[in-house]
Amino acid sequence: HSYHGDPPSLQLLKNNLQFAPFSSALEAGFWHQLTQKKLNDYRLDESPKSIKGFYYNGDPVGLPTRLTLEFSAFEVDGPTPVRCCPAIGTLYNMNTLDAFKTTDKKAMLEKEAKEIWDVIQSGAALSDPSILCRFILLTFADLKKYHFYYWFCFPALCFQEGIKMIKEPILIEHIVALQEAYDDLCVKKETTAVPYFLLKYNEDSVQMADLKDWDTFFSEAKKVSVGVYDPCTLSQHPGWPLRNLLLLIAHRWGSKLEVLEVLCFRDRTLQGSRSIHHSVMLQLKLPALTPNSACPKSVGWEKNSKGAMGPRMVNLSECMDPKRLAESSVDLNLKLMRWRLVPSLDLDRVISTKCLLLGAGTLGCNVARTLMGWGVRHITFVDNAKISYSNPVRQPLYEFEDCLGGGKSKATAAVDRLTKIFPGVNAEGYNMSIPMPGHPVNFSEATQAQAQRDVQQLERLISEHDVVFLLMDTRESRWLPTVISASKRKLVINAALGFDTFVVMRHGLKKSPVNDCVSGDSSTSCSSSASSCASTPAGPAPSAPGSSLFSNIPGHKLGCYFCNDVVAPGDSTRDRTLDQQCTVSRPGLAMIAGALAVEMMVSILQHSEGGYAVASSSDDRMNEPPTSLGLVPHQIRGFLARFDNVLPASLAFDKCTACSPIVLDHYEREGFQFLSKVFNSSHSFLEDLTGLTLLHQETQAAEV
Amino acid sequence: HSYHGDPPSLQLLKNNLQFAPFSSALEAGFWHQLTQKKLNDYRLDESPKSIKGFYYNGDPVGLPTRLTLEFSAFEVDGPTPVRCCPAIGTLYNMNTLDAFKTTDKKAMLEKEAKEIWDVIQSGAALSDPSILCRFILLTFADLKKYHFYYWFCFPALCFQEGIKMIKEPILIEHIVALQEAYDDLCVKKETTAVPYFLLKYNEDSVQMADLKDWDTFFSEAKKVSVGVYDPCTLSQHPGWPLRNLLLLIAHRWGSKLEVLEVLCFRDRTLQGSRSIHHSVMLQLKLPALTPNSACPKSVGWEKNSKGAMGPRMVNLSECMDPKRLAESSVDLNLKLMRWRLVPSLDLDRVISTKCLLLGAGTLGCNVARTLMGWGVRHITFVDNAKISYSNPVRQPLYEFEDCLGGGKSKATAAVDRLTKIFPGVNAEGYNMSIPMPGHPVNFSEATQAQAQRDVQQLERLISEHDVVFLLMDTRESRWLPTVISASKRKLVINAALGFDTFVVMRHGLKKSPVNDCVSGDSSTSCSSSASSCASTPAGPAPSAPGSSLFSNIPGHKLGCYFCNDVVAPGDSTRDRTLDQQCTVSRPGLAMIAGALAVEMMVSILQHSEGGYAVASSSDDRMNEPPTSLGLVPHQIRGFLARFDNVLPASLAFDKCTACSPIVLDHYEREGFQFLSKVFNSSHSFLEDLTGLTLLHQETQAAEV
Repeated sequence: HSYHGDPPSLQLLKNNLQFAPFSSALEAGFWHQLTQKKLNDYRLDESPKSIKGFYYNGDPVGLPTRLTLEFSAFEVDGPTPVRCCPAIGTLYNMNTLDAFKTTDKKAMLEKEAKEIWDVIQSGAALSDPSILCRFILLTFADLKKYHFYYWFCFPALCFQEGIKMIKEPILIEHIVALQEAYDDLCVKKETTAVPYFLLKYNEDSVQMADLKDWDTFFSEAKKVSVGVYDPCTLSQHPGWPLRNLLLLIAHRWGSKLEVLEVLCFRDRTLQGSRSIHHSVMLQLKLPALTPNSACPKSVGWEKNSKGAMGPRMVNLSECMDPKRLAESSVDLNLKLMRWRLVPSLDLDRVISTKCLLLGAGTLGCNVARTLMGWGVRHITFVDNAKISYSNPVRQPLYEFEDCLGGGKSKATAAVDRLTKIFPGVNAEGYNMSIPMPGHPVNFSEATQAQAQRDVQQLERLISEHDVVFLLMDTRESRWLPTVISASKRKLVINAALGFDTFVVMRHGLKKSPVNDCVSGDSSTSCSSSASSCASTPAGPAPSAPGSSLFSNIPGHKLGCYFCNDVVAPGDSTRDRTLDQQCTVSRPGLAMIAGALAVEMMVSILQHSEGGYAVASSSDDRMNEPPTSLGLVPHQIRGFLARFDNVLPASLAFDKCTACSPIVLDHYEREGFQFLSKVFNSSHSFLEDLTGLTLLHQETQAAEV
Repeated sequence: HSYHGDPPSLQLLKNNLQFAPFSSALEAGFWHQLTQKKLNDYRLDESPKSIKGFYYNGDPVGLPTRLTLEFSAFEVDGPTPVRCCPAIGTLYNMNTLDAFKTTDKKAMLEKEAKEIWDVIQSGAALSDPSILCRFILLTFADLKKYHFYYWFCFPALCFQEGIKMIKEPILIEHIVALQEAYDDLCVKKETTAVPYFLLKYNEDSVQMADLKDWDTFFSEAKKVSVGVYDPCTLSQHPGWPLRNLLLLIAHRWGSKLEVLEVLCFRDRTLQGSRSIHHSVMLQLKLPALTPNSACPKSVGWEKNSKGAMGPRMVNLSECMDPKRLAESSVDLNLKLMRWRLVPSLDLDRVISTKCLLLGAGTLGCNVARTLMGWGVRHITFVDNAKISYSNPVRQPLYEFEDCLGGGKSKATAAVDRLTKIFPGVNAEGYNMSIPMPGHPVNFSEATQAQAQRDVQQLERLISEHDVVFLLMDTRESRWLPTVISASKRKLVINAALGFDTFVVMRHGLKKSPVNDCVSGDSSTSCSSSASSCASTPAGPAPSAPGSSLFSNIPGHKLGCYFCNDVVAPGDSTRDRTLDQQCTVSRPGLAMIAGALAVEMMVSILQHSEGGYAVASSSDDRMNEPPTSLGLVPHQIRGFLARFDNVLPASLAFDKCTACSPIVLDHYEREGFQFLSKVFNSSHSFLEDLTGLTLLHQETQAAEV
């Protein structure tokens, strides 16, 4: 056995030793995780990031020598897959394709090579030789198209002249002893793969040791054997990880060394049984290294699929799961906002908001679309109408087909459309009527019972959502949800259209009744129901009595839609002409009002006090805005003919037919009994109750 | 033959004569035409309208006695169908269902009866007895649902006591003679049907005459025979038209008359041959009428399908052609605007405008939807992008399905969606690139040729449209269409988004070059191309030099998108980060800007000077608006964080890299040669050409 007998003649082979370079193997999971990191953590940060890959020495013949990066690559302290060796890497993720292309790749490689040379010189690589196996990954992620541009580099220090082989590589012997020794080493080191090790033969057994034990392990210095965990599958060539080891050995022990025997350790499982037979043994003569020499030359940029020096690109837009792709794409535009423009934007607060849309007509469709744009996933529609032929051109969730056969129900068709737009949405539709003041429900026991069920359903829906949008086309249909939402302390966003004017407003948000929270056994549900949008102000509310009527009104003192009215709502549809029945409005108006309603909600959600925030007014336009997105007005009144908006704010009215304490009190105490009186009565019931009647009489008396 | 022998005994039958009432038969065409009349002419006008029906005396047995109203009912002076008799009617079309229900039907009938009594008393009914057969039609058209509520009345004056028959009705004899006499009468009267006539028998022949010839035609006054064109098919009963005739006869001649013989003339074609055999002969004793008596009692409201006194309703939403229904429904909302709100609105000008949308992304989708809402039918998209997963939640013409397999082309997918929304749209999509300054096209002859084709296509498209919308996401892609549109005098509406700000503007519209119009042989094409939106001001433009720079700027002096810039457009995408590449904006912003872009266009179209109109500014908000829809600003700059819009106006810049005379001159003289220089050069080419370079140098010199 020549390799452990006398020193061989130093008759060298003609050809230099050649190494099989790494091929980069990037799993889709890696790109997915890079996307997430880019969106959530790195944003515009181009500074180098530590990542981790791994390689395996058990691949079947024919596979390239792979360095694999997967989902876990960003957890550098995480575990390496069993029987694999780690490779530490540096990620340079550039913000633009241009930066990707123009990066100084030579400098990047030299910097990395210098670090390897440093750990060789310092001896750090002896105690942890895995740091000899490194890589650089330069990337640009085009997250609009899911095109990932990348270029790998596996830095290898080079001897000035090549490495000469003493003889051709041969297959190994002492299979069992080698295998046992390696397994023992692994056990000793508490790992499943050792990248570099020392070895020597004693009769039929083999001993192995750590690199750092060189001087004690080897009795003679002229001919030693080392092992390398070798990912290469070629019979005549070792893989790339050997390269920097040879530099280390040449640097530290090369001057005395005449023959270096290298075990390229390969360890695969074939048809269920382990085999290291294909491991290869090399006998090398290392070139001399000048002591204290400068950092050697380095190589390592990977060739692309055409075999040329150049980057690679992977297009993942087609192979990723489309629905997941859609979800992450939708998030992208939103997260982009936080990179540069509004770093403090609390997107989760927006996205997790559950929105109830009462009305799925012109306003409802536009509100839903804007909510989708903001990433809101939980959208519920209530409407009792069917889609008619005039709807699709103005109600952007419906199409001509939806009108056929008498028309689909708007509430359910709207849900279908949202799902077609974005399969990840969580939308529901309720084809139901909302009972209204002055629209009697007491024709029969059946109608009365149906009204009661409708009220219960509406109460449940309002309870289950965070924000209630009032988007109906009559005044009186807004009464019941106004009362219920006020009682349940839910944020209400109300939008209503004229011909070329609109109002978008938030209702005043009553303070949570303190006694409810301390009495009863459900104090947690009380506080949690108030937590989402109706978070109670952190400090005492700025509500000093006698403060201005028109500015600095805190949210809990703001009026509702009915506060400015001095008559109770009644049946307004009964005697309306066609132009009054259809909300005849300039077609752009609903898009503007719908968009503003959502933008207003989002701004309010960004305020630390939510619906309790002091109302911004037109005068506040010149001041520092109260949220990262700007103002939180009480009302936006728009005038399309003048392309103008004003931002009035007004106080809650103590005789309001919807949100005054006496109405809420009756509703909370009597429930449906009270409501059905309102439905079945004329104006005067609510007006008598709230004191409006008396107010009218006094006003008339004063005028007389 | 008893009926022309001796006077019969006046032994009367026990039962009174009964008449078969009319059944109203309303064709869908009638309702369609009523819809049109309501929308275009009547609007909110509830005053009575003259209409016309007809009845036929040739129906087979089993059919009800029909009074038919069809499409032609509104043309009261138009022809009556052949062999039919006209019935004149009064239409009361109410604006609300409530008005329909609460109308005083008794008074309505009495009014009509009084008119009949008047024409009987005055003798007018003698010269034109067709006016005895009248009807009232009370309607309410619910044009949102295509539900038509109606109630017919066929007023008939009544004798206080019933009409007694002398014997049972019998079939007629002298068939041939009767038939010949009737045909002769028709020829003599130049008609195909005579509602009432006199007749007498001479041996085997029959003579007929007009009602007004009574005194000369009949030799004796005690027993006479009259004929009535009888729509009834019952063998024992006459139809309704006989009733008022009997009153007329009783009033004028009743005192002397002992026996009135009535021929209920029925005239049908059975299996190709004519038959009057089923005509019926009645012998009647008319009750006495007090001379100068008051108007008799009247009856006539039709029973509904349940046999009760009440209105009928027809639901045409399902039986009308859905696509036609969609078209008329879409028009409805628009026409409603003119009824009360904006009577002077020139809808045709809007609807007929051909719009070219450059860009089918967030802005393009919202602009297209608003245009559809305004009834614009001709919409063309240009875009070279494919739909990606992040698009559908913000680009309201696309769905998840459109993203699969690499994504559909936006331009064609947008067309498909518009067609699904409204099949009557005339939309086209061009999946093409717009060459841009600083984006060289001279890589090869092929790329140069492609750029030339793209330019030609864009020139053709701009020529063929009235308004060009610039809705792209880069600055430089707006350059070429700005130049071409300026040269072709097309109205340009430009919209661009920031994160929470936007600009919507119209480009200045250059005056048509006068020399082009008088020289050359195509003066007509020149004037016609300028006619649609770019109508030349009627009077001299208010363009006195030295007038304020910032107010009262006439349209032809307004700047374009590039007028405020002092650098030429170049490749802005090359080094942009992801948040700069995607237009990262608050989701509501594009809806608002898109809607405003269209509303601004519509307002400009309503101005008599179109794109030449003096620009409105924020200061004009308090003034009388220049159009029925309001202001016509140069720019709307929106600030979502403040919910504010301002309306700046600015002058065209004589060194503008897009619309200055020197650029237009080079483009018009050199065409693609000039353009390709711009595409292939850096900034400096346009800056040198327009004198911007010199301006920079002077500015720098001044600063030094």
